[in-house]
Amino acid sequence: MLRCTGFRARAHSARHCARALAAIVSFVGLTNAATAADSLVTTKAPRFTQAPSHGRLVRHASDWRCNPQLHLSRLLAQPGRFERFSLRGGGMFLGFTHQRVTGETMQFLHSLAKERLVTDQFAAMASGVKVNNTENRAALHVACRDLTRRKFVVDGKDVAPDVREARKAIKPFVEKIHNGTLRGTTGKRFTDAVVIGIGGSYLGTEFASHALAEHADKNIKLHFLANVDPHAQGRIFNAIDPERTLFIVVSKSYTTAETLLNAAGAYQLMEDKRLDPAKHVLTVTAKGSPGDNPANPVLQAFHMFDFVGGRYSVASAVGGVPLSLELGYDKFTRFLKGAHEMDRHAMTASPEQNLPLTAAMLSVWNNNFLGYGVKGIIPYVQPFSRLAPHVQQLNMESNGKNVDVLGNLVNHRTGPIIFGEPGTNAQHSFFQLAHQGPNGFPIDFIGVMRSAYPDIKVKRRGVTNHQELWSHLTAQPNALAMGLRQEGKKVDGKRRFPGNRPSSMILLKDTSPENVGRLLSFYEAATVYEAFTWGINPFDQYGVENGKTLATQNREVIAAMNKGQPMPPTVDPITKKYLEALMAGELPR
Amino acid sequence: MLRCTGFRARAHSARHCARALAAIVSFVGLTNAATAADSLVTTKAPRFTQAPSHGRLVRHASDWRCNPQLHLSRLLAQPGRFERFSLRGGGMFLGFTHQRVTGETMQFLHSLAKERLVTDQFAAMASGVKVNNTENRAALHVACRDLTRRKFVVDGKDVAPDVREARKAIKPFVEKIHNGTLRGTTGKRFTDAVVIGIGGSYLGTEFASHALAEHADKNIKLHFLANVDPHAQGRIFNAIDPERTLFIVVSKSYTTAETLLNAAGAYQLMEDKRLDPAKHVLTVTAKGSPGDNPANPVLQAFHMFDFVGGRYSVASAVGGVPLSLELGYDKFTRFLKGAHEMDRHAMTASPEQNLPLTAAMLSVWNNNFLGYGVKGIIPYVQPFSRLAPHVQQLNMESNGKNVDVLGNLVNHRTGPIIFGEPGTNAQHSFFQLAHQGPNGFPIDFIGVMRSAYPDIKVKRRGVTNHQELWSHLTAQPNALAMGLRQEGKKVDGKRRFPGNRPSSMILLKDTSPENVGRLLSFYEAATVYEAFTWGINPFDQYGVENGKTLATQNREVIAAMNKGQPMPPTVDPITKKYLEALMAGELPR
Repeated sequence: MLRCTGFRARAHSARHCARALAAIVSFVGLTNAATAADSLVTTKAPRFTQAPSHGRLVRHASDWRCNPQLHLSRLLAQPGRFERFSLRGGGMFLGFTHQRVTGETMQFLHSLAKERLVTDQFAAMASGVKVNNTENRAALHVACRDLTRRKFVVDGKDVAPDVREARKAIKPFVEKIHNGTLRGTTGKRFTDAVVIGIGGSYLGTEFASHALAEHADKNIKLHFLANVDPHAQGRIFNAIDPERTLFIVVSKSYTTAETLLNAAGAYQLMEDKRLDPAKHVLTVTAKGSPGDNPANPVLQAFHMFDFVGGRYSVASAVGGVPLSLELGYDKFTRFLKGAHEMDRHAMTASPEQNLPLTAAMLSVWNNNFLGYGVKGIIPYVQPFSRLAPHVQQLNMESNGKNVDVLGNLVNHRTGPIIFGEPGTNAQHSFFQLAHQGPNGFPIDFIGVMRSAYPDIKVKRRGVTNHQELWSHLTAQPNALAMGLRQEGKKVDGKRRFPGNRPSSMILLKDTSPENVGRLLSFYEAATVYEAFTWGINPFDQYGVENGKTLATQNREVIAAMNKGQPMPPTVDPITKKYLEALMAGELPR
Repeated sequence: MLRCTGFRARAHSARHCARALAAIVSFVGLTNAATAADSLVTTKAPRFTQAPSHGRLVRHASDWRCNPQLHLSRLLAQPGRFERFSLRGGGMFLGFTHQRVTGETMQFLHSLAKERLVTDQFAAMASGVKVNNTENRAALHVACRDLTRRKFVVDGKDVAPDVREARKAIKPFVEKIHNGTLRGTTGKRFTDAVVIGIGGSYLGTEFASHALAEHADKNIKLHFLANVDPHAQGRIFNAIDPERTLFIVVSKSYTTAETLLNAAGAYQLMEDKRLDPAKHVLTVTAKGSPGDNPANPVLQAFHMFDFVGGRYSVASAVGGVPLSLELGYDKFTRFLKGAHEMDRHAMTASPEQNLPLTAAMLSVWNNNFLGYGVKGIIPYVQPFSRLAPHVQQLNMESNGKNVDVLGNLVNHRTGPIIFGEPGTNAQHSFFQLAHQGPNGFPIDFIGVMRSAYPDIKVKRRGVTNHQELWSHLTAQPNALAMGLRQEGKKVDGKRRFPGNRPSSMILLKDTSPENVGRLLSFYEAATVYEAFTWGINPFDQYGVENGKTLATQNREVIAAMNKGQPMPPTVDPITKKYLEALMAGELPR
């Protein structure tokens, strides 16, 4: 039975909790049924552009363009703006005072979310409905960090025990690595682990690993071997002592070309060094995949599930094995707890109090109605330096779609382009364009209240490094929003700052494992809330298939040429030039 | 005297060489004159939107939207496209077969470039004219890598000897570090160098350092301390042995807040460890800056010039000192030679044969006429993993402007948003959107013909890692351009690939220092050619000033609160909430 404790709600959202549960219960009946798209919640709602609030928002956005009163510099002067346009929940803070919104905007946006039944869709997702209809799969990444005894029913079966078992296998294993019970072929303790995986098997773990470096006290250094470029492999293999190295091969299908070629490189290295793969290789893969083969013994095989997509998989064994090696299993569990807390918030908070839902609607507002097609992710937190590449994958691979769940072409924008670098670095890089380019782009500013280095107290001009960082973090949203008025002065052209450039402020207390988990879950939930608003499936990625097909053709041509065969006449003349040049090792002519 | 050898031209461009020289000679007379904007070449040309070819291109672009014959899948089938739409020069290859262009498009674009006198502007820049009119400065980054005896006249004075002297000071110094003549306070050899600088004092050097890691054989490891975030400083200071560490403080003005605060941290560390800054600190700064102060003795001071802007400064001592420490001065010189070769090409090749000029016009086409506001930089070269952040700064800080050189607001797009990650990684991340998002974005694909790891020969499916990489590098432009036709078949919605998504192919032979120099110069030249087309000044960055002013206000408030003073009533209520939260170390309420 589903129990409300799994969605334990804050007092103010108890009513919403009941509604969410009702939604879930009403969908449990679906889990055994065919997952035809038209049985999904999203199809019970009007399409995005046909929702009544869509039209209202289109008209409302045109006000924003025509009414000079709606410049952010005026709105920010209104009393109570902080209280009206900021939220706390799930252990996080979201300020959207500096977004180009009024109370009316937020009301329309939340109406749109309601018309599109987004919380019902979220509840269906979290209850095990196969919301990934094109692949006929559930999307239960939230199950990976649910440390309660809640059931997650897929095809009539509670999958929670399997998820727990996969998670619990990590603890005793990493303890044996950490205490030296398990050692390499030559009896040496492990000091390095090479994570061989790409895309969703890589970016989230890399983000979390960078974010949590201060907590890495297990003397295991992680290396990420993603790119098939031999430079990537060469550099890492030159930097490690193979006798002291674990190779973690991460691939759900165990068919990813790059990962298998890099794994082959690792096996070659072990062979050259006479090391036994059964003492150095870990796999994280789906049960029964080509990598889950007893004929090729490995030190340990960890499992992942078809109901957890790659880009949502950090909380599964994909992130769990490397992060537990680096940080210890306990800290990985703290990371899961933080993610779970935000999951609960995302599921149970009322829409108007819901951080990821609100962030999603702000993204929809900026993208579909104000016309920004890009979003900047700027953490004023150096440890979050790989947050933008992670969110870039998470969001652009989930939401860079031109078809809805029914396979119809959409007639509106979907996911924006996401990019970013840490601040204050970004201020000395692309912020010129943010302030003074003809358009600018909306920004998520991200900060932590406390630094992990409280001892760095050297003061210049009376402030610490952390305070200097905050001087900028709090200045930039104002500078972008306010611009610079030169009323009554002779206008100095090069100092024209139009202002009215929107941003949000996302704050965490510090870079603890819990907070990194919260941030991860926040962006995951915001991503799926956006998708649910547009009516697209954020869990497939058919867009990359055409490129894979053509790469296979090229690979076959190269392989044939390696055997001395001529270039087949079917190769188009431009590709032919490039492949000839490749074989010659010279620039094309 | 200016000699043609400085611009030695290929036979086919001798005529153009003469023209470029004539342009330079005609501007030498200007170098002593006032640098009022209206004396600049750009103002002698029609404005961007008033140039005759601008109107033609607007009409031509509307054909592209309406004429189905102009889908890339059809254009790519035309014979001779490779020969017509690819260039070699300056040691590089540029293929633009997969851009949405016909011969007519290129003709219009080159006409626009001619009408805008872009090569004359470039020649003026390279001759010492103060093209950075708002700051009354020349822009002579090309002088830094001109290893000939050519003169560069600024304000009637040949500055080439000063540039040579600054460069030549690096060689004997780094040799003394490498051979152990110069050692730290405690007599230990140096093994690490912390480069303390941000923005243009950091990103280009970081790109080159990452790109050239295979050539780093001097046993000096570089660390880049850019961000003022104490996490950045804490992590680096924990990773080094201060007794064996050089601190290189890079700041032209020596007033950059982040750099000075991080330098203060380094001085504190040396004090704590009883190390003498005069044995550990290097400065790279303008002569006479606050950092160029004999009262604070340093191991050695290196100089930079007001005619070399930060983001164009990698070839000056900014990059020269750290890169020579890491690679040796000889390899730094090879890097300069490659950059110089591309500079010469950029200055002397006829426009139609000119790689950076052509790349700039393609960027203008995509941005201003086809409406893409974003460009992806995707190197299929893992060592170039920091190319996108460098070009992001170079281009977005140069060209993210809303005013022309006269200070007039422009009524057209200027520089696009630039982002990127290496391929094939990007294929498993944001390429879903590139293929199947409603719009997509143009891409620069970058590759090298040869890997630095020819020994990585393990083959799977008959190809090496480098060949697998190339299977993808050559597949992606086709997949993006061609899309997937499903004619005659029942359309599978989720596999709709519209195609017609443009890209260029930029190829180098390998990751040698020369080639990294070529690539750097290519993007610099393309950036200024874009700016010259639009009529904006790519050498200033007033857009960042408003943020700096507000940060100063916030810093002063925090400093006052550190002394126990109350929050001044002038602080706006939202900033007040954030600063109170900062002081409390808790999330805002």
